[in-house]
Amino acid sequence: MLGKEISQAVIGRLPRYFRYLGELKDNGVERISSQELSELMQVTASQIRQDFNNFGGFGQQGYGYNVEYLYNEIGKILGLDTIHSFVIIGAGNLGTALGNYLNFERRGFVFRGIFDQNPALIGNLVRGIPVRSMEELPGFLRENEIEIAVLTIPKTGALGLVDTLVECGIKGIWNFAHVDLDVPEGVQVENVHLSDSLMKLSYNISSQNAGKE
Amino acid sequence: MLGKEISQAVIGRLPRYFRYLGELKDNGVERISSQELSELMQVTASQIRQDFNNFGGFGQQGYGYNVEYLYNEIGKILGLDTIHSFVIIGAGNLGTALGNYLNFERRGFVFRGIFDQNPALIGNLVRGIPVRSMEELPGFLRENEIEIAVLTIPKTGALGLVDTLVECGIKGIWNFAHVDLDVPEGVQVENVHLSDSLMKLSYNISSQNAGKE
Repeated sequence: MLGKEISQAVIGRLPRYFRYLGELKDNGVERISSQELSELMQVTASQIRQDFNNFGGFGQQGYGYNVEYLYNEIGKILGLDTIHSFVIIGAGNLGTALGNYLNFERRGFVFRGIFDQNPALIGNLVRGIPVRSMEELPGFLRENEIEIAVLTIPKTGALGLVDTLVECGIKGIWNFAHVDLDVPEGVQVENVHLSDSLMKLSYNISSQNAGKE
Repeated sequence: MLGKEISQAVIGRLPRYFRYLGELKDNGVERISSQELSELMQVTASQIRQDFNNFGGFGQQGYGYNVEYLYNEIGKILGLDTIHSFVIIGAGNLGTALGNYLNFERRGFVFRGIFDQNPALIGNLVRGIPVRSMEELPGFLRENEIEIAVLTIPKTGALGLVDTLVECGIKGIWNFAHVDLDVPEGVQVENVHLSDSLMKLSYNISSQNAGKE
């Protein structure tokens, strides 16, 4: 898409820009200056300009940004102009919650299947899609050219599954298992380590309490 | 706790150190050099030393790190040596999943209550705790001196709830709602924006695909 490497820090900020621009668009705002966007998002205007310069700008001197154009362009950069099919592996509460989350569909992420090793869950419907057994997983991934696997299983299960996923053509793993996955080049992993996030909150509360004493 | 400000980037890395050290400890490893820890975690040894220097070191020249000591010290820094009580607001699939997650308890996070505005869910049990109505929330927070509120509700509900939470003494909000919350100083927010994370994965898959063409 682009010749140069964009830092993961910049990429990590793009979804937030996308979210704010989507809200502005929904509220009928047509254009916005980097100063106004800066105040709204509580980041510096220079940060915004620098971030957007990674993708060739988008702004126009004296006009600011066209909200809808910028929203669409960032959406394209994020790959949201194409369909991404995904399966969920692990049909517990978390897997079911993600399967039921309709907002992903609006962004082009299409829920295609859900798998579990627990026989008691097989056949249960999640948004009309039956939970399938793990034995069916490899064939299903290949036949349906699934792009993303969402892992909502314990860490031992996740570690043992990576090779199969890669062999079956998975391009990205959205990993909720509490472990770092070792994948070959060309396969992307995005981690959601919930415990880590909760510990960070705990740190900030503790150091705030300590500061007050 | 400590006089100087520690950057959020360093704090963000602490839970990962804690996780690796916990695994080493569970595997009976007593000491480790920064070089070995570096290879295991795939970060540079100098990064590890710099991170730990924020908290006064921990290492000993020629010996490396004592795994259990380091694990305990990082745990204390993260505030895991004290009990943190939390309630979940939103008893849908995600809220239920978080209520059922036993690992949080092991780290000192104690699940005390769960609330929802949907009358059909009230009285349902999540790990033995009944879902309560939103009307009961303020009294419950005050009487039980709850520290953390976990928000697993849509963004409009989350925005309308912040003032109440703050008034009732909440110190930290673990926010799964797809919106940035505006809180007064002294209240900590840790966001888990699932859509943002999925978009980041999508970006990395798309740019990987583009690179191959």
